[in-house]
This record gives sequence, structure tokens and C-alpha cells, in this order.
Amino acid sequence: MIVECNTVQFESLTLDSGGTLGPVEVAYETYGQLNAAKSNAILALHAFSGDAHAAGVSHETGKPGWWDNMIGPGKGFDTNRYFVICSNVLGGCRGTTGPASINPATGCPYGMSFPVITIGDMVRLQKLLIDWFGIERLLTVVGGSMGGMQALEWAVSYPGRVVSAIPIAATTRHSAQQIAFNEVGRQAIMADPDWNGGDYYGRQPPARGLAVARMVGHITYMSDDSMREKFGRRLRGKEDFGFGFDVDFEVESYLRYRGSQFVNRFDANSYLYITKAMDYFDLSFKHASLAEALEPVDSRFLVISFSSDWLYPSYQSQETVRALRSRNCDVAYVELESNYGHDSFLVDVAEQSELVRGFLASTFEKAQ
Amino acid sequence: MIVECNTVQFESLTLDSGGTLGPVEVAYETYGQLNAAKSNAILALHAFSGDAHAAGVSHETGKPGWWDNMIGPGKGFDTNRYFVICSNVLGGCRGTTGPASINPATGCPYGMSFPVITIGDMVRLQKLLIDWFGIERLLTVVGGSMGGMQALEWAVSYPGRVVSAIPIAATTRHSAQQIAFNEVGRQAIMADPDWNGGDYYGRQPPARGLAVARMVGHITYMSDDSMREKFGRRLRGKEDFGFGFDVDFEVESYLRYRGSQFVNRFDANSYLYITKAMDYFDLSFKHASLAEALEPVDSRFLVISFSSDWLYPSYQSQETVRALRSRNCDVAYVELESNYGHDSFLVDVAEQSELVRGFLASTFEKAQ
Repeated sequence: MIVECNTVQFESLTLDSGGTLGPVEVAYETYGQLNAAKSNAILALHAFSGDAHAAGVSHETGKPGWWDNMIGPGKGFDTNRYFVICSNVLGGCRGTTGPASINPATGCPYGMSFPVITIGDMVRLQKLLIDWFGIERLLTVVGGSMGGMQALEWAVSYPGRVVSAIPIAATTRHSAQQIAFNEVGRQAIMADPDWNGGDYYGRQPPARGLAVARMVGHITYMSDDSMREKFGRRLRGKEDFGFGFDVDFEVESYLRYRGSQFVNRFDANSYLYITKAMDYFDLSFKHASLAEALEPVDSRFLVISFSSDWLYPSYQSQETVRALRSRNCDVAYVELESNYGHDSFLVDVAEQSELVRGFLASTFEKAQ
Repeated sequence: MIVECNTVQFESLTLDSGGTLGPVEVAYETYGQLNAAKSNAILALHAFSGDAHAAGVSHETGKPGWWDNMIGPGKGFDTNRYFVICSNVLGGCRGTTGPASINPATGCPYGMSFPVITIGDMVRLQKLLIDWFGIERLLTVVGGSMGGMQALEWAVSYPGRVVSAIPIAATTRHSAQQIAFNEVGRQAIMADPDWNGGDYYGRQPPARGLAVARMVGHITYMSDDSMREKFGRRLRGKEDFGFGFDVDFEVESYLRYRGSQFVNRFDANSYLYITKAMDYFDLSFKHASLAEALEPVDSRFLVISFSSDWLYPSYQSQETVRALRSRNCDVAYVELESNYGHDSFLVDVAEQSELVRGFLASTFEKAQ
């Protein structure tokens, strides 16, 4: 598999909040080869804490990409046939311009002077990247969770540019519960004195607040069932309770570890900005109905949800499907049985691969 | 309704961790009148953040008790017929000895020198109180959530002393997910520099950490449905997004408010100790099975769960019921339909009242 990592800079980006931001850098990776007709390109869209490193082994960290089990030769997104692009989102902290980037006007990191962004802004930047590649129409836009929200935004904002879309474990609008969990994470970060109004670059970052935020996140990504299977009530290296506040249970140890590790790879301000973008996401905002909002859509859809996902429950995908059907869109919908909760789209990929493989093949054929 | 508020002190309490604690004060309230045979007494057991003020209007705060809709003349727990006792739990911060109490050995608040306690310890202290009342057998022990865990503990530890038990929205053992949510709350508190190793009395308490912990709690007490009904995506006092990190949504405003208010009535160290007691709760620990652990039980049961409660899901109550049935216990089980999530036992009380009324009447009759 040919893997390319690169960065491209754009002069300026128009934002939903009214202003512009510029220059804007985008970090991206590609897998496979673009064909001569440029008709085999797939844009993979990462979830909240993901990055451009979707597949293969990173030269930098030695780690596989976040969807390495889905993208590669012979895999669901077969890089022998398709050209897959993945870029870090606007507001991120893994190569694309975000709050930790240097504001050229001041020579200092943006911090909280970074503009509040939306899923629409992220997609507008991705569109610049696709234009830069000279790709007229993407064969598909695909992603899970926030990636699925971007896929839906693409289908609404650039209908002529996407032959198909695969939103997985996603929604057309964040619910009160989804907003609530994000708000808890934000408050945990902002409650940490080290956050310091977002001005902590070159100093101690708000590691404790970010760790707490990440711990909450991890619980919502798993299911009650998968936590029981993975941890149950197993004690950590002991036979009896410690009768103290050190780790007693394996699940405590896991959460503390994942929380503390997250600080090494994620910027707390990006946490604030990206969760806010998710919370603002509502395709039906200022429309009479979701169906009305979907009026421009002209793509085929494969919508996937997972039975044990309680963070982005199946009913949300089913709302999307109903609204798309009411616009006579070509929509396939599958709820996959899985115990892994919201994480299913990342870890339980056997059936998902088969679904994607078939959908891509028929989409590619029809598009020629 | 005759309401009595009082405090009683016991010399010493044996603890599951091995030591003893003393003296121990218990704050309690009673409603109604104990009959001459002392056969009409009900012990109501509060949930995590509750206190002894279960019913009537508090002289101190002017507020109704946490179960005022269930306890009173003509209500589910009819104080014209029954004598209801409610005490603040061991480790609490509302009149019963806890980490904020003065350690007589030092003259200073216990803080983190307070011993780690269990649900068994809480119940052992309640038993001292019931002995002090001279009550041989309680007509019933009843509570929701952590209160239901105490009711189950009573039935196992003092089978001859409880005619019946009503565990509501409860479990015989905390699951990995339940432990995980509690651990997030504890970490949020301990991450706050104002926590200062638990030594903050007379100074600034860890208000920000405790508020974050409470916000997480509130999400788990509601359901996705009830949050949609109560908040949806309604914006707070505006027509459009603020494109900043102040409150945008009603749900954010609600959580921030509830988080910040909690600090006024709850001690952060009590949060640590009481959640730890819940996490340790596992009636089957060191037994071959739950059924074996329930071997001593000799009470009637009314077990209640709520359809939308995802924090203490119905399957946990059903596990309890199966194990009790396997010991030939007299068990009635009802899953009530309600949208309010775990909070249902506090707010959706019409059917619950009817169930309790019938169960108490037949239990009282049989017990004479």
C-alpha cells in the first residue's frame, strides 16, 4: 500500500461564525492510488480524537492508524482499488490548524482567540483539499461518530461532489444527552487552574482536567455489557478491597491510565473547540424539518448503526434514514449487532467491512 | 403528621475494614407514630446525596423532604398507619458522623483519616438506631438506588429484624459501568487543587471538582428521553449560537447550575467515601453465588425497577429477583414504565405508591 503523509496550506477559510481564518494548514494522509479518471477517491473522516493517520503504520509513532482494520489492500476500503484520503479536522491538534497553532498576527498560539468552528467549517476546509487534489467527485465520504456527521454535512453542502456517503454511528443533530456529556468534559478542563483561560502553551497543560474529560468519554464509548466483559468487578492486583482511594478495580485502573495517556496526544483547547462543533451540529437548524434540510442531497447512502451504541443510538440513524427516504434518496440501512457500544465502528469490523465492500463496488459501477 | 428531628450518639461502631469508629452520631427524622406493639415501623433509606429529611417541610431550609411525595398521611407510606424513620448515612454530611465531623482524638475534622466504610457499616449503624428505638422487627426497609442496596444488606445481615424489604432501582453489586461513573466523580474532586488531600475544612472547598462530579451524576440520573423532553436543543436566552464557551444550550445551563448548587449542601469528602461504599457493595463477594449469599434471607420482597433507568437497569433487579426466588423467598417484582431514568423512583410515584400501599397492607396483616 502506498502511504503518503503531507501538509497543504490554504490562504483563507470562510467560517460559519462570520469571519475568516487564514492561512490554514491541513495535515493529510493518502492510501492507494488515484486512478486517471480520479473516480476512485474516498474521503475518510475521523471521529473526535482521531487524526489524519487512518491506516498503515505511522513513521512517527510506529502505531497503526485508527481504521487500519478497515483501510488497506483487500480490506473493506480496498486500497488496491480505491484511493483513500484522510485529513485532520480544523480545530485539531495533529497537524491541521487549531487553537495550539501559531496565530500569524501575533506570533503566539491562538488559544481561546481561535474562532469557534462548526462541522460545516471542517467540511469546507476538506472541500478545499479535495479541490486541490483536482477531484471532481468523491466516490464516497465515510466516517463514524463525528466523522459520520461530517459525511452527512458533505452530502448536504456539496451534493454534486459526493457520489455516496456512509455515515456510521452518527446523527444529524446532537441530542441533549450528547451535549451534556461534552459539556461535562469542557467544564472539567476549564475547572483545572492549569487551563488558565486557554493560555498554557509552553507551560503545564490542564492535564488533570483533560484526563477527567477523557475518562467520561471512554465510559460513553463502551457499553455496560462490554465493560462487564472487559472488567467486571475484577480487583487490580489484590484479593480484597484496599479500603483506601488508590485503585481497587481494574476498571478504575483502565480509566485512570487512558485519561492520563490522552494528555500526551491531545490538546485540551482542541477538546473544547471540537466538542463545541459537535454540539452545534444540527442539519435541521433553521429548517422546518430535517427532510427539508436534506432537500439538496443527491447521493447514495449506506447508514450503519450498532445495537449496543447508547451514545449515538440506532434511533438517531433511523431518523436520518427516514428523512432521506422521504426525499426519495437511495438509502441502505443496517443496524449491526455488536456488544462494543459506540466503539463498535472502530473494533467490530467484520460485517461492516462486508457491507462497505459491496456498497462501494455497486456505487463505483453505477458511477462509471 | 408528627415530624421529629433528632440526633443520637453511639459509643462505637465496628467497621468492615477491621477497626472501630466512635463516638458516632446519627441524625434522623421520624414521621407518624410508633404503635404500642412497635410493629408499624418502616426504615426509609436514602440514596447517595439524600439525607434524614425524607418528608414534611424542613424547619431549617423550608424545603420538602426527598420522598415527600411518598411519605405522609394517605401517601404510599401512610403516616396515619405507619411510623417512618429516616437517618442520614454513615459517612454523610447532614448530621451523621462523616469525614467533615470532628475527630475527638485530634479535635480536627477527620478528612481523609476517616475510615473507608461500606454499605454494611451504614446498615450496622442503622441497626444501632433501631435497637435504640426498641423496635424488634421493622415492618419494612425501603429505599431507591443506594437506599435499595441498604435494604438488601438489611435483609441479608439482620433477617430476623425485617419483615419485608423494598429495594427500588437497585442492585446486589455495583457493575463496572457504575464503578466507572463513580470513579470519574472521585477523580474530578481529587483533581481540584482545593481538595488538598481532603484537608480543606475552614478553607475554600473543591467546589469546581465537586460540581463536575455532580454534573456527571445528573446525566446518569436522567434518561436520553427525559433530557430530550426537558431540554432538547433549546438555546438559553438566544436565537442563535453564541460562538463562544458561555452557555448556549438550556441543558448546559441546567447542569452548571445543579453542579454549582451542590457545593452548598454536600461535602466533597463525603462524595468520595459514599461512592466508594457503593462500589464495594457486592452481596455475592466471597460467596460461590448470589443465591448462596442470600441464604440467610427471611423477608418478603417487593422489587421495583424502571424501564428507562440505564444507571441501575432492570436486569440488575431481575438478577436479584431470580436469586431470591431460587431461595424460595416471597418476591413480587414490577418493572414500572417511566421516562425519567434513574430519577423515576423520586419523581414518578403514582404507580409506585399503589404498589407500596398494597404490599405494606398485606405484609402488616401477615405479620400480626
